[in-house]
Amino acid sequence: MENEILMSEKKEASPEFSLPFGGRESVRVFAPATVANVVCGFDVLGFAVEAPGDEVIMRLTDKPGITISKITGDDGRLPLNPEKNTVSVSVQHYLNSIGRPDIGFDIELHKKMPIGSGLGSSSASTVAGLFAAKTLLGDESDAAKLLPFAMKGEEMACGHGHADNVAPALMGGFVLIRSYEPLDVIRLPHPKELYCAIVFPDVDVPTREARQIIRNKVLLKDAVTQWGNIAGLVSGLYTNDIDLMGRSMQDVLIEPVRAMLIPDFYKLREIAMENGAVSFGISGSGPSVFSFTRDEQTAHTITRKIQQHLDKIKIDSQAFVSPINDAGPRVLE
Amino acid sequence: MENEILMSEKKEASPEFSLPFGGRESVRVFAPATVANVVCGFDVLGFAVEAPGDEVIMRLTDKPGITISKITGDDGRLPLNPEKNTVSVSVQHYLNSIGRPDIGFDIELHKKMPIGSGLGSSSASTVAGLFAAKTLLGDESDAAKLLPFAMKGEEMACGHGHADNVAPALMGGFVLIRSYEPLDVIRLPHPKELYCAIVFPDVDVPTREARQIIRNKVLLKDAVTQWGNIAGLVSGLYTNDIDLMGRSMQDVLIEPVRAMLIPDFYKLREIAMENGAVSFGISGSGPSVFSFTRDEQTAHTITRKIQQHLDKIKIDSQAFVSPINDAGPRVLE
Repeated sequence: MENEILMSEKKEASPEFSLPFGGRESVRVFAPATVANVVCGFDVLGFAVEAPGDEVIMRLTDKPGITISKITGDDGRLPLNPEKNTVSVSVQHYLNSIGRPDIGFDIELHKKMPIGSGLGSSSASTVAGLFAAKTLLGDESDAAKLLPFAMKGEEMACGHGHADNVAPALMGGFVLIRSYEPLDVIRLPHPKELYCAIVFPDVDVPTREARQIIRNKVLLKDAVTQWGNIAGLVSGLYTNDIDLMGRSMQDVLIEPVRAMLIPDFYKLREIAMENGAVSFGISGSGPSVFSFTRDEQTAHTITRKIQQHLDKIKIDSQAFVSPINDAGPRVLE
Repeated sequence: MENEILMSEKKEASPEFSLPFGGRESVRVFAPATVANVVCGFDVLGFAVEAPGDEVIMRLTDKPGITISKITGDDGRLPLNPEKNTVSVSVQHYLNSIGRPDIGFDIELHKKMPIGSGLGSSSASTVAGLFAAKTLLGDESDAAKLLPFAMKGEEMACGHGHADNVAPALMGGFVLIRSYEPLDVIRLPHPKELYCAIVFPDVDVPTREARQIIRNKVLLKDAVTQWGNIAGLVSGLYTNDIDLMGRSMQDVLIEPVRAMLIPDFYKLREIAMENGAVSFGISGSGPSVFSFTRDEQTAHTITRKIQQHLDKIKIDSQAFVSPINDAGPRVLE
């Protein structure tokens, strides 16, 4: 069952890790941005990209507790107070869970992706921090066991401890969160040639608000459409059937509500589909939008044309083109 | 895309078939019972079993139109009037669609499975009739092209033209109806060793009523649970992960409502799970219940123990043990 990790409270609490530590005093780690929901998988699907992402430099210190000595790329928006920062809070949960609150770390966080973009900015930072700590501790256990600690960070960041960003950021690839209680996370395969074209229109869509506008009751017939589509998407992922993936990537429940938060959403879709996109939708809670394509060139064409339209309506934007990132976080030497 | 059939109106209307006819005057066809919904796939999943099923004997006649000369095994519940019988109505739609209303057939329907059992009784009869007609016509096109005509029969039988019984009955195996408009039907793989244990408690649960008691609005959080589960089930089917299939086969939306129509439903579940079932749930709209098992012996144990309990509470029942039927309908020589 290589493609599946079932986590129980017990396992979370005791990753087997090999003391003495990993043999280094400091480490620099990259963790990737992620696209959650993936159109028809609200709250249960997500995948990681190669870029953008965040970097954490972590150093062992000689006194207990976590300090944050530096944060760059956040325009001063993130707290240096370790009790208020999702990275330090998640790492402290991890240290406590393995019975080592005596360990001390200093953290430098280098934001290299936009905050509030719907690309899992907080989860990229948190996962980079947790992976750095795991590396310094020489903890050889599966990175997926850090998921519950990363979810604590998400809870702090957006008031909802969801896993659809942190799970793919930690594990890499395409991930299904089948269940939250118990936490049941399944790694899905994907066509190797798939490319992702992401555009972040620089407008403000706070995750909390993006969740609040969603109705808590839906029509059963719409839910049936949605689970037919997610079943079709998963089937397409297993059979490398990109046409089926495209047909299945429709969202009749969440997108119609959230589209209003994104400038010219339906025009952007038209541009993407006319230029060869397999699919088009909102990344996470937006405002970033993404398309799957069959090759890198098409992905670049789509981001260019979408950015041209956003320029026309006077909206700044950033674009990212990347294959799916199967590795997840990595140590940068 | 061998595991996927996308049907367009155009294709339905013109199966290429080779005149002169199949070279026979009459044919006897078996079509299988089916389990729809499959716990977490309400209205979109279904699979066929080896037994039970229905038989149709069809003869070419020398005058246009369809007659029904005999129906057995229905206790006189099914109409001999060809305008009121789902088998003849579906076959007439098929003849009309291929521009051959001049052709005449006589039908003998032999019901060999319980009516109103939640095992796709009407769809087994309809599919047997359509497959018999296709065979007599020497129509070499894919049986799946008969699906729209079978759905007309379902519309007549239960007031809702659903495909989750007729699609697996026609195509065999495990089937996903990803979408109804356009009709998009995907064949899913399954673990070869999987067995199905079915028990039909002989109580009356008319499909129309079973649908009417379902709420037309559901909580989004329950819908999310449901699509996490169907995604997990589909993943388990592709990876032969029977544990994952079992964990995923939970229904928080439909089952809690329909369970009340089935005597001692939760006790029957307890019996099934205690005796090694992978899963337990309602077949279609009930009252039949089914379990997946890892082998034939376990399936027999479960049906025996469930029937023992139903005897105790004075409910007659019938049991069926079968692997998944990958062939669908077949000609009986």
